[in-house]
Amino acid sequence: MALADILAEDRPKRPGTETALAELAETFGDRLVAGEDVRRAHSHTTTYIPNQLPDAVLFARSEPEVQTLVKIAAKHGMPIVPFGTGSSLEGHVNAPFGGVSLDLSEMDRVLSVNAEDLDCTVEPGVTREALNEHLRDTGLFFPIDPGANASLGGMAATRASGTNAVRYGTMRDNVVAVNAVMADGSLIRTARRAKKTSAGYDLTRLLVGSEGTLGVITRLNLKLYGIPEQILSGVCPFEDVTNAVNAVIQTIQMGLPVARIELLDALSIRATNGYSKMDLPETPHLFVEFHGSPASVAEQAETFAAIVEDSGGGELKSASRAEERSRLWKARHDFYWASLGLRPGAKGIATDVCVPVSRLADCIDETRADAEAAGLIAPIVGHVGDGNFHVTLLIDTDEAAEIASAERFMKRLAERALDMDGTCTGEHGIGQGKRGYLGAELGEAVNVMRAIKTALDPLNIMNPGKIFTLDTA
Amino acid sequence: MALADILAEDRPKRPGTETALAELAETFGDRLVAGEDVRRAHSHTTTYIPNQLPDAVLFARSEPEVQTLVKIAAKHGMPIVPFGTGSSLEGHVNAPFGGVSLDLSEMDRVLSVNAEDLDCTVEPGVTREALNEHLRDTGLFFPIDPGANASLGGMAATRASGTNAVRYGTMRDNVVAVNAVMADGSLIRTARRAKKTSAGYDLTRLLVGSEGTLGVITRLNLKLYGIPEQILSGVCPFEDVTNAVNAVIQTIQMGLPVARIELLDALSIRATNGYSKMDLPETPHLFVEFHGSPASVAEQAETFAAIVEDSGGGELKSASRAEERSRLWKARHDFYWASLGLRPGAKGIATDVCVPVSRLADCIDETRADAEAAGLIAPIVGHVGDGNFHVTLLIDTDEAAEIASAERFMKRLAERALDMDGTCTGEHGIGQGKRGYLGAELGEAVNVMRAIKTALDPLNIMNPGKIFTLDTA
Repeated sequence: MALADILAEDRPKRPGTETALAELAETFGDRLVAGEDVRRAHSHTTTYIPNQLPDAVLFARSEPEVQTLVKIAAKHGMPIVPFGTGSSLEGHVNAPFGGVSLDLSEMDRVLSVNAEDLDCTVEPGVTREALNEHLRDTGLFFPIDPGANASLGGMAATRASGTNAVRYGTMRDNVVAVNAVMADGSLIRTARRAKKTSAGYDLTRLLVGSEGTLGVITRLNLKLYGIPEQILSGVCPFEDVTNAVNAVIQTIQMGLPVARIELLDALSIRATNGYSKMDLPETPHLFVEFHGSPASVAEQAETFAAIVEDSGGGELKSASRAEERSRLWKARHDFYWASLGLRPGAKGIATDVCVPVSRLADCIDETRADAEAAGLIAPIVGHVGDGNFHVTLLIDTDEAAEIASAERFMKRLAERALDMDGTCTGEHGIGQGKRGYLGAELGEAVNVMRAIKTALDPLNIMNPGKIFTLDTA
Repeated sequence: MALADILAEDRPKRPGTETALAELAETFGDRLVAGEDVRRAHSHTTTYIPNQLPDAVLFARSEPEVQTLVKIAAKHGMPIVPFGTGSSLEGHVNAPFGGVSLDLSEMDRVLSVNAEDLDCTVEPGVTREALNEHLRDTGLFFPIDPGANASLGGMAATRASGTNAVRYGTMRDNVVAVNAVMADGSLIRTARRAKKTSAGYDLTRLLVGSEGTLGVITRLNLKLYGIPEQILSGVCPFEDVTNAVNAVIQTIQMGLPVARIELLDALSIRATNGYSKMDLPETPHLFVEFHGSPASVAEQAETFAAIVEDSGGGELKSASRAEERSRLWKARHDFYWASLGLRPGAKGIATDVCVPVSRLADCIDETRADAEAAGLIAPIVGHVGDGNFHVTLLIDTDEAAEIASAERFMKRLAERALDMDGTCTGEHGIGQGKRGYLGAELGEAVNVMRAIKTALDPLNIMNPGKIFTLDTA
């Protein structure tokens, strides 16, 4: 999707918006905020896609309040853009057709922790770090960790994953059920708390990844896991990316239950050394982690070390103390901010693709060569155990030629992933930025998605303009 | 759903059916079969729900043929009932509104095995045993194992699981993508072969478990796993079911990665001893299995033995040789047939529920007491690690009073599971038999399911009368 096309959609405001806003102001008083700073902060995204501001921001505090908002919006055909922390990367929280940004950050209660059943129920504004903080004394944790301290509602809406997905799955696998307010204002619960069910359509999985276009997630039931008896992290250097990726492929194919296996290329290591005060040699590295009993962790680490040696990698430096591990993974999670240091003043355009693991080395090789040929500063990091990697392009977004070059690069990257039977996005979602690739990826299946969207949101008020465009938009 | 209500729907044939059948006969020649025996065999289900015969059976051989069938059916508004092996339990393959049973058993090719990516692509008529036979020399296996040797298309359509689900998940977790012919005859592919994706709505999970009501699954991409280096099975006796279930709960809560953990109550053991020539003491037993490296399996077995001792169970008798293990699990898989021996001449009505594991002991206790009070022969077995268990009622289905008593028992069972925040079916599906509970379980969410059904199949030709009824049905 070229930037120009996205911007061309800006602000064809729906006719009923003013009336709806007046009705909301009457109902919600000063929790409906129209100041420009607040509106701008709510269309903020860490992308190159410019802000498209909502007409107002509503800070909701309960499911009935969300229902009231949606009913008013539905009556007047006004768009609603659900907002968690604004850390999405593809323009998900922009408001190209105006309307209300629904800020869910005040719905931030952990409603229950069912330690016996390894699950919990939370409101959508709880962030992943807040949940783990809440769980601190229970011996349990929630594993899904996108880079940002995102809200769990937003993570579900975008089907987020992160470094632990290779072992624990993504939000797809870890959301047991959600409550959602649908476009007609009805409140549904998609499933009970049983671990598995075959009762009807899997509406949980339909809402997870729907990017707010079908309903507003107002409550989540999530799987939890016991904190492993033993955790061992480590880093290990490679001479080149291909060798590192080959070690990953072998690890996955052997079925080694690695908990995390992350690639940082040489440029990423340089950025991380600078930002996070590390002193790793500036070559590609794998960051890994093993979970299990002491004997199992020792066995996994030993097997992995043998794979690394076999792949020509260097020594596995391990970190078993909690502080060392935290420091390592904080550095990994801070990568986006670290990358900005590679070109002061530039913005980072983060994009991701995911391919079958057998094609991962080829895909990364070709992508690196392409970036070099295009003269782009483009560090690569990735959740490589899943075949998923990220390229962060450091771009002067005031220069149209640079943006155009970045867009051409991202298009080639998406096409490369599709040619390898992969996807144009492993975890960032489609939003506005990747709408142009969805048809190439899934063909006529996109018509089925549109039919579902139209059936469940006939007025197209739920986060319009995301995932795909509709005639009515 | 009372039997009487289901039967009352029988055969209000759609007006265009004869014309559609004539057109199909012209197109498919003798692969369209109208003989009563064949039609009866295609509405066969292992339930008490009587046969409702289709008007004809079509043996399709390719995706284009399925598309041709669906287009003809759509033109004339004729129902299509997809058919794999007919082993579903809730009337899924009955044809209450007539039309064509679409037999997919001749679409039985394994199209590719991508050992490097741990996945494979198969046609829907491949059975789970045929796939594992095909994989024999690859070191890989597909874990999902409902009792019957079901077709993989049918297993996906009903979101099947089985004994390995506690470790490997259900069909929900193991289908990467499907091809499906939708109600307008269009052929879609729901996802690429990447391990994870956040590109648009999760149509894969929407089709998995949709029971043929949204489209016909014509191809599946499935996850595979390396055969574990070491496999250890075992059986261990308990004095009563509560102790056995408590051992299970502790195992799950500790996060022990058990691959299988199955409960058979005393009555089930008696049946299994008789049918499968075992000589286990007639008390409740757990059948378990551990997968991993030799050290990990030894560690798991040791931990489990300690849990069993703690729960008052008897000695864990282990079986590590392949033949012993096969014999044990064959006995478990043959349980349905074994149960028929408890009352010669009776039919077995198999039903299942699933509850949060913390409620499992209560649910099983109350269910046993209820069966006893109702004078029903009702052995209980279950995939208890998931909180999922089965009750098989041995019933003389010629006696209306017995059927009525069984129906009342099943209603109480479903309500009990719902009261415990569980589901009316963990793995059998809704079909015809459990339509009456879906509303109680999911409330307004069922309206969302209906809206999706109506949007994607406006003529209600795809397996009508299953999961829910529609005004148009």
